[in-house]
Amino acid sequence: MDLDPRARELLTGPNIGNLGYHGLDGYPKVLPVWFRLAGDEIQVASPPGAYKCRALRADPRAVLTVSTPVAPYHVVSVSGLARVDVFPEPERIEFVRAVAEHYLGAEGGRRYVDGWIKGGHPGPGDLIRIPMERVRYTNVSGE
Amino acid sequence: MDLDPRARELLTGPNIGNLGYHGLDGYPKVLPVWFRLAGDEIQVASPPGAYKCRALRADPRAVLTVSTPVAPYHVVSVSGLARVDVFPEPERIEFVRAVAEHYLGAEGGRRYVDGWIKGGHPGPGDLIRIPMERVRYTNVSGE
Repeated sequence: MDLDPRARELLTGPNIGNLGYHGLDGYPKVLPVWFRLAGDEIQVASPPGAYKCRALRADPRAVLTVSTPVAPYHVVSVSGLARVDVFPEPERIEFVRAVAEHYLGAEGGRRYVDGWIKGGHPGPGDLIRIPMERVRYTNVSGE
Repeated sequence: MDLDPRARELLTGPNIGNLGYHGLDGYPKVLPVWFRLAGDEIQVASPPGAYKCRALRADPRAVLTVSTPVAPYHVVSVSGLARVDVFPEPERIEFVRAVAEHYLGAEGGRRYVDGWIKGGHPGPGDLIRIPMERVRYTNVSGE
């Protein structure tokens, strides 16, 4: 995808994404997540059977918004129909290791994975994949 | 409302909120916003007739999620049925001045308002009010 370089910078830096989806109760939900841009899709790992995965399986319409935490605010929103697949244990471990180091640095990422990995066998999880069907980049003022 | 002190800290500090709502196209939308906690409601100012206001008038189900930008992640989500009212110019100016100083500090807020106020007459805007019908506080790991 021909991505605006400022959008790409936001999507590839260690910025928290805010995942938006329709909740099972009909309300919109917004959840901060770690994510990875892989080719033309956004990938988010999840423990198996989490609420967000059940909701996205029921209604796959999703958005991921990333913004700078302080002014000036740069914002990118990626929308698409999410797929939720089983994430086999080996690929899940590799993915979590990569995103943890991306967000926490080499040392912090290692510590995170050591605590998360549960003796080497966290089991399978879920992988949320949002194809970048629409990308919107904006600068916003505060109001 | 009897608010968890950690939730109150997130909602009263200069943290960006992520406003979630149902878009007019049926997709979930997530938008970073400045907000103020006033009594039992979340308040967000908007220019008149903005997309988010038209969407919230069509479907008032809303959520505002606030999280710390770096680990460890503390997250609070406030859900409720939003009201969108006309924001008369004098109250709008006072509100924008207060939130700009809250987020940017005294000096930065003054500069922001000087640029925003358009010669003293920005006109009326919209005020989004989300009553805190449900508040959810969580600590999340990255996955």
